[in-house]
Amino acid sequence: MTFSVVVNVMPKAGISDPQGQTIERALPALGYTGVNGVRVGKRIMLEIEAATEDEARARATEMCERLLANSVIEAYEVAIGEARTEGAQA
Amino acid sequence: MTFSVVVNVMPKAGISDPQGQTIERALPALGYTGVNGVRVGKRIMLEIEAATEDEARARATEMCERLLANSVIEAYEVAIGEARTEGAQA
Repeated sequence: MTFSVVVNVMPKAGISDPQGQTIERALPALGYTGVNGVRVGKRIMLEIEAATEDEARARATEMCERLLANSVIEAYEVAIGEARTEGAQA
Repeated sequence: MTFSVVVNVMPKAGISDPQGQTIERALPALGYTGVNGVRVGKRIMLEIEAATEDEARARATEMCERLLANSVIEAYEVAIGEARTEGAQA
């Protein structure tokens, strides 16, 4: 089966986030006040072929540890979405 | 009230995604086969002060149009999370 997987990777609390700081500084100049705590991370969507949802989740988690996230400075979460069988309509 | 807002920004279908392609090419070398359709976007978390959830959503959407996303090549979605009153425990 093919599983749709979403991986969210965010900078951990306390880790500097220059992208977020830049956005936060730019917003008042555009007229948006009252916006705080801007943090920018990555959202990765992928399709994994696996026999079960647990297998898909385990492989996605391993990929996060090895490639998708830097676990020293980033936290990640894996969400498994809908599954479809090969050959079926998407 | 302060609303926690999550904005997901993804490259639109058909738009080239070099980051996703690079990840997809790197995975087999690490032993992960059966992974397709990798797309990499941004996940932006922010806190917006607003009177109502609708107001928070409207302002976040406007910020997406003007700063957070490039709507020519990116699709965005806005999700409003929990609200808290000023002075309350986070």
